[in-house]
Amino acid sequence: MGIVGVGLIGGSIALAARKHAGCQKVIGLGRNLHRLQQAQQLGILDEATSNFRELSSADLVIVCTPVDRIVEDVTAVLRETPDSTLVTDAGSVKARICENLRALGPLSTRFVGSHPLAGSHRSGFENADADLFVNRKCVVTPDFDTNSETSAAISRFWRKLGMNVRSTSPQAHDRVLALTSHLPHLAAAAVAGLVGEEEVEFAATGYGDTTRVAGGDPDLWTAIFSENSAEVVAATDLLIDLLTRYRRTLVDQDRAALQHLLTVSQRQRRAFDETHNAPTEVGESP
Amino acid sequence: MGIVGVGLIGGSIALAARKHAGCQKVIGLGRNLHRLQQAQQLGILDEATSNFRELSSADLVIVCTPVDRIVEDVTAVLRETPDSTLVTDAGSVKARICENLRALGPLSTRFVGSHPLAGSHRSGFENADADLFVNRKCVVTPDFDTNSETSAAISRFWRKLGMNVRSTSPQAHDRVLALTSHLPHLAAAAVAGLVGEEEVEFAATGYGDTTRVAGGDPDLWTAIFSENSAEVVAATDLLIDLLTRYRRTLVDQDRAALQHLLTVSQRQRRAFDETHNAPTEVGESP
Repeated sequence: MGIVGVGLIGGSIALAARKHAGCQKVIGLGRNLHRLQQAQQLGILDEATSNFRELSSADLVIVCTPVDRIVEDVTAVLRETPDSTLVTDAGSVKARICENLRALGPLSTRFVGSHPLAGSHRSGFENADADLFVNRKCVVTPDFDTNSETSAAISRFWRKLGMNVRSTSPQAHDRVLALTSHLPHLAAAAVAGLVGEEEVEFAATGYGDTTRVAGGDPDLWTAIFSENSAEVVAATDLLIDLLTRYRRTLVDQDRAALQHLLTVSQRQRRAFDETHNAPTEVGESP
Repeated sequence: MGIVGVGLIGGSIALAARKHAGCQKVIGLGRNLHRLQQAQQLGILDEATSNFRELSSADLVIVCTPVDRIVEDVTAVLRETPDSTLVTDAGSVKARICENLRALGPLSTRFVGSHPLAGSHRSGFENADADLFVNRKCVVTPDFDTNSETSAAISRFWRKLGMNVRSTSPQAHDRVLALTSHLPHLAAAAVAGLVGEEEVEFAATGYGDTTRVAGGDPDLWTAIFSENSAEVVAATDLLIDLLTRYRRTLVDQDRAALQHLLTVSQRQRRAFDETHNAPTEVGESP
């Protein structure tokens, strides 16, 4: 198999594919050959290259570059590999990427988008982990034009790594992820942006949990928010509306309404704990 | 010493006072004598009572009831104990409580407000922990009328439990905690309130961290927000303003401005990690 972009996710897929999916050989592709050779020395890659042609022997290529480079890299892979090579990505935004790739025509039928919901606060292949994907969720996003065998094969691959695979359209993925991932990040960043040097000494675990993701890479998140800007704007509007409703209960001293809002939030948060602690076996409908 | 309200915090103070502060005898006071007797059987309390007069032999009484009951309970303690008994509380909102108690006149000079920034997702004295306060922060909030010896003695007590004690006015406490504690909770609750049953399956660790505190008790947080409503409204306005600035960068496709906002948030979040991981020794200025 081939991995384009060998960081934490790409490196972990390389290790996981060997450990869980019987993969014999992993070719890593990247701009910085020196870094790739380090990954080779660590046993994460079998071969390292900067030339897309060298991926032509791969059965499967996974593009793990930042969301604003995925279209370009997937296009290069599709152009340099034979019809038998399946291609997917690992980006956390899907609609714009899948739309742009569909414009390639027949070439794109052996591509389907993926979003493995796994990660770490650390980055780089030095922190790669063969079990990063076990019991985590993966969303596979077939489009109208996607070959259903492509979709089924890619879903099988993620399942072998231990993931619970869900299938949905790229647009539905982006709408839901705007709420479940991008909005939490934006809210965390905004709260962290309001707590300055003088106040932070008084912060405790509540602040610590709520703002944890705000420590993430600004470049990465600028790209994610920008790629999914319409859905993130819509989600931000919902958040501002709900904060305004909370605010009104305080101004009106309406304790019953405040308690009702908090109770709904608590119930929905607890539904997450139940879902999260019990890994679901979900069938695929590509 | 006496503890009014023997839950997680009250029970932990009882255990910690014995282990770290050489306390000989702990009297617990509460409405539910049956529950208090269970705490006695667990060795958390030496005596259990529902009568404030039985606290008259205590050198120190700590009121650990919910924020909307603290004024009433501290008043009862001050009325039933001699001039030699010092009194504090453990509430997470201070200005309204301290103002109401100051109205008692000379009686209130042996009270000073406290806010130990420690807790757990669990509740009840069954989860009490003698080391809950070690390396955590405590804010002591002397008022104009507070006897400086009262303030110094209470601060010493919290230090013995292992806490890093800061001293500030009740008003400054509430303004800062609105940003560092109440606003994170409100933001977490609002985000959780937007992610329904259908979406929550796609939520991962980012959502999990950001909304963790939204699982907290709605009654408790209704009381906290209501007690500090003016400051929480002001903090919510700041959050809505900043979210609106983030929104504008997305609508304008101004990636540089978006990245700048995210970079400021990241830097402030990292300042917390540095403060939090290196427990500071902070002197007191009562």
